[in-house]
Amino acid sequence: MSRLNETHDPALQSWLASANLAGQDFTIQNLPFAVFRRAGSGEPFRGGVAIGDAIVDLAKLAEAGVLDGAAAAALAAAAQPSLNDFMAQGQAAWSALRLALSRALRAGSPLEGALRECLVAQADAEYTVPARIGDYTDFYTSIHHATNVGRLFRPDNPLLPNYKWVPIGYHGRASTIGVSGQTFRRPLGQTLPPGAERPVFGPSQRLDYELELGIFIGPGNAQGTSIKLDDAEAHVFGLCLLNDWSARDVQAWEYQPLGPFLAKNFATTISPWIVTLEALAPYRTEWTRPADDPQPLPYLESEALRREGAFDIQIEAWLETARMREAGEAAARLSHSSFRHSYWSVSQMVAHHTVNGCGLMPGDLLGSGTESGPTPEEAGSLLELSAGGKRAVALPNGEERRFLEDGDAVILRGYCEKAGAARVGFGEAVGRVLPAAL
Amino acid sequence: MSRLNETHDPALQSWLASANLAGQDFTIQNLPFAVFRRAGSGEPFRGGVAIGDAIVDLAKLAEAGVLDGAAAAALAAAAQPSLNDFMAQGQAAWSALRLALSRALRAGSPLEGALRECLVAQADAEYTVPARIGDYTDFYTSIHHATNVGRLFRPDNPLLPNYKWVPIGYHGRASTIGVSGQTFRRPLGQTLPPGAERPVFGPSQRLDYELELGIFIGPGNAQGTSIKLDDAEAHVFGLCLLNDWSARDVQAWEYQPLGPFLAKNFATTISPWIVTLEALAPYRTEWTRPADDPQPLPYLESEALRREGAFDIQIEAWLETARMREAGEAAARLSHSSFRHSYWSVSQMVAHHTVNGCGLMPGDLLGSGTESGPTPEEAGSLLELSAGGKRAVALPNGEERRFLEDGDAVILRGYCEKAGAARVGFGEAVGRVLPAAL
Repeated sequence: MSRLNETHDPALQSWLASANLAGQDFTIQNLPFAVFRRAGSGEPFRGGVAIGDAIVDLAKLAEAGVLDGAAAAALAAAAQPSLNDFMAQGQAAWSALRLALSRALRAGSPLEGALRECLVAQADAEYTVPARIGDYTDFYTSIHHATNVGRLFRPDNPLLPNYKWVPIGYHGRASTIGVSGQTFRRPLGQTLPPGAERPVFGPSQRLDYELELGIFIGPGNAQGTSIKLDDAEAHVFGLCLLNDWSARDVQAWEYQPLGPFLAKNFATTISPWIVTLEALAPYRTEWTRPADDPQPLPYLESEALRREGAFDIQIEAWLETARMREAGEAAARLSHSSFRHSYWSVSQMVAHHTVNGCGLMPGDLLGSGTESGPTPEEAGSLLELSAGGKRAVALPNGEERRFLEDGDAVILRGYCEKAGAARVGFGEAVGRVLPAAL
Repeated sequence: MSRLNETHDPALQSWLASANLAGQDFTIQNLPFAVFRRAGSGEPFRGGVAIGDAIVDLAKLAEAGVLDGAAAAALAAAAQPSLNDFMAQGQAAWSALRLALSRALRAGSPLEGALRECLVAQADAEYTVPARIGDYTDFYTSIHHATNVGRLFRPDNPLLPNYKWVPIGYHGRASTIGVSGQTFRRPLGQTLPPGAERPVFGPSQRLDYELELGIFIGPGNAQGTSIKLDDAEAHVFGLCLLNDWSARDVQAWEYQPLGPFLAKNFATTISPWIVTLEALAPYRTEWTRPADDPQPLPYLESEALRREGAFDIQIEAWLETARMREAGEAAARLSHSSFRHSYWSVSQMVAHHTVNGCGLMPGDLLGSGTESGPTPEEAGSLLELSAGGKRAVALPNGEERRFLEDGDAVILRGYCEKAGAARVGFGEAVGRVLPAAL
C-alpha cells in the first residue's frame, strides 16, 4: 500500500504563483501548520497553513464555511489559538483537511476566490509556539553526535554500552520553548575551570546550538498503556526544526549523575511550521542498522520500520554574527546533515517513551537530539565542530568561532528534495544570543 | 521581625471539635489547600481548605459572600478547579485568605454558621492534582541519599565532586503526576541482568518508592530573569508529600549519560494537601553546612538562609502489602526522617533553578529528592534499606521486601510537631502497584 496520494503529485501547481517557484519550501505538496497573527496587531492567534509566501488563515476559512464534512470538523480544530485539539483528532482528520486544502489551492480550483480572501502574507505575520506543550522530551538519536560528544566528556569511554540498545532520552523544560525569533540572555551558571578545584560563577563561556528536529505528538496514549512500534506514527502529528541551545561549561559540571539541567533549560527555539508526516511520505527511506551492531529488541523492531521508518530530511545550521548583520553579509553555514543518519527512528522514540506506561499527550514535543552525520563536517553543534573549543571555526568574513558570542543568531533550516517529488521545506528556526544579565 | 502572627497562636481552637484533637494534622493553625469534590458526584472540582475531618468548600464560601477585601479576591481564585491563579497572586493574597479563614473557623466566630454550611466531610471527598503543573523538576537535596545511592551505582565514587556545590536537579514528567490514591502498572522496560552482555525486556524487578517533599511554585519569574535567594520563598506557595516511584533496574541501565527517564516517568504520587510556607513558620530552623564542607557560592548564601532557611518536617513512608490489607493489619513504617537534614534548602532550589534565566510558572512543581537522613534507618527508599536488594527488609507480619511487589501500597506521611506550637500535618500520599500489563 503506497502512502502517496493525490496530494503528493509533483505535477500539482497552485493558483498562488509563489508556491510554484523553484526552491520554495511551502509548495502545494507541503501544507505545514503554524499558529500566527498579523504582526503587532493584537489579533487573536489562530492556526494557519503555509502556501508559497502566504498563510491560509484557518479561522477566516472556517468562517467562510466553504469546506464541509470531515475537513470542516478538522478545520474548526486547526483554526484555534493552539493546535492541540487538531493534533488530538488523529490521522483521518489531518488527512481530510490536507486533501481539502490541496484541492482548494490547486490551479483551477473553484474555491480560489474564497481562499484568496483568507491569505495573509508571511512577511506580515508573527508566530507563537503552535501547541501548549505539556511535556518536552529530548532524545539523543545520532550515534555520531553521541560519539563525538562522548569523546570530549569521557575520552576513554565515548559511547556508553547502553547506547546501541536504548533510545536515550531525558525530560526537558517545556516553559522556555519559544518560536523562531526567540532571543535569550547568555545564561549565568556554575562552571569548573580546567584544573580548578572550586567552581566559579558567571556567564557561560561555551554557549552552543544543537541542530535537531522536533516531533509533535498527536492523539497519544493513556497512562498505563503503551504505543506499539507499528502504531507509533499514527501518534505523530508532524516535525519541526528545533535548536536545543546548550551551555557546555555548565553542562560539563552539572550533568552527573542526573543529566543536563540548567545547561539546557534557559531556551529552546522551534520553527513555527510543523510539516506533517503525510507531507514527508515521499521522503521516507529504509531504516538500517549496521550488521555488526546489536539489532533492536523486539519492541523496537518491525518490518515496516526497516522498509520505510527513516526520513531523508536535509537539515542545516547557519550562523549570522552581529558583524555580518551590520554589514548586510549573508549568514555562514556551519552544519549540514540528514535525519536519515539517525540511529533511532521517530517510531522507535514514541514506542520506547511509552513502553513503561508513560502517557503522551496531544501537543507534547520530542526532540530528536543533535543530528550530526557520519563525517566531521556533518556535525550539528559547535562543540563538535571546534573539537570542544580547541579548534576555531573560520567564518567567510574573517571572524572565527569556538562557541557562540553575544549577538550571534543561529538559523536552522530543513528541507526535503529529490527527483520525482516536490520540495517540502520547514522554513527557519532563528534564535539570537543577548548579553548576560549582570 | 517574627514570621509568626495570630494564625500561629497554639492556643487557637476551632468551633469544629475534630480540629482540636491531639494528633490532628489539620489544625486551625494549618489550613492547607487542595482541589476536591464529593466522591463519585461528577461535581466540578474546586478549591478547599482542610479543617479537622472536614473541608471548607471554597466555591461555596465564595458564593456565600461572607469574606471581603483582599481575602475575597484571594478566595475567588482559590475556589477554582485548579489553584494556579491563586498561586500566582502571591504572599499577600495567601496571607489574607489564611487570616480570614483562621478567624472564621475559631471558636466564637460570628461566621461559624455560614462556614458550617460550606463543610464537606473528608471521608466523602475525592481529590485531583491541585494545579496544572506546567513543568516538574526533581532535585537531589539529601546528601545521605546521594551518598547511599552513589555507593550502589558507583562503589568507587559515591558522591560526585559537584554535589557539594550544585543543587543537582533534573526535569521530570508532569503528565504522569497523580494525587494520592493513584495506582499504576509495574513498568516494563530494558534492564541489564548482572553479568549479562545483552539487556532483557520485561517487568521491572526492582520497583521502589522515594520519600520526598514537593514544592509548588507561586508567582515565579519571567524567562531571562532570576529569583534571588532571599526573594525565593515569596515564590513558593507551599509543600506537599511526593513519592517519586522508581524502577531501579531500568534506571541503572538507562541513566547514563542523560539521567533518569523511563525509570521515573511512569508515575509520581503527591498528597492532595499543600501546606503553605506560612503555616510552616513555627517549624523553621537554621540551615547549616558542615564546617569542613565547601560553603555555598554567593548566589546560594545569605544570612536569612542561615538563620531560618530549613524546615523541620517529619516525613515517613509506610508499606501496606496486599496480605496486610486482606488481613486488616496495620501498615509497617519503613522510613522516617526530617527535611531539616536536606543539604540544600527550598530557597536554594528556587534560586539555583532560575539563575540561568529559566522561568518558573505558577503551579510548577519541584521535588526535593529522596530525603534520607544521616542514619541507615532514616533512608527514604528500599534501594537504600535493602542495600541494593542484598538484604531483605523484615516486615512485622513475617513478610519481607527487597523491592516492591504487586499489590503493595506505599503511604507517605508528614507532620511538624514541637512543644509550644500547634501540630501541622500533610495528611497522606498513597499509591499502589498493579501488576505489569503483559
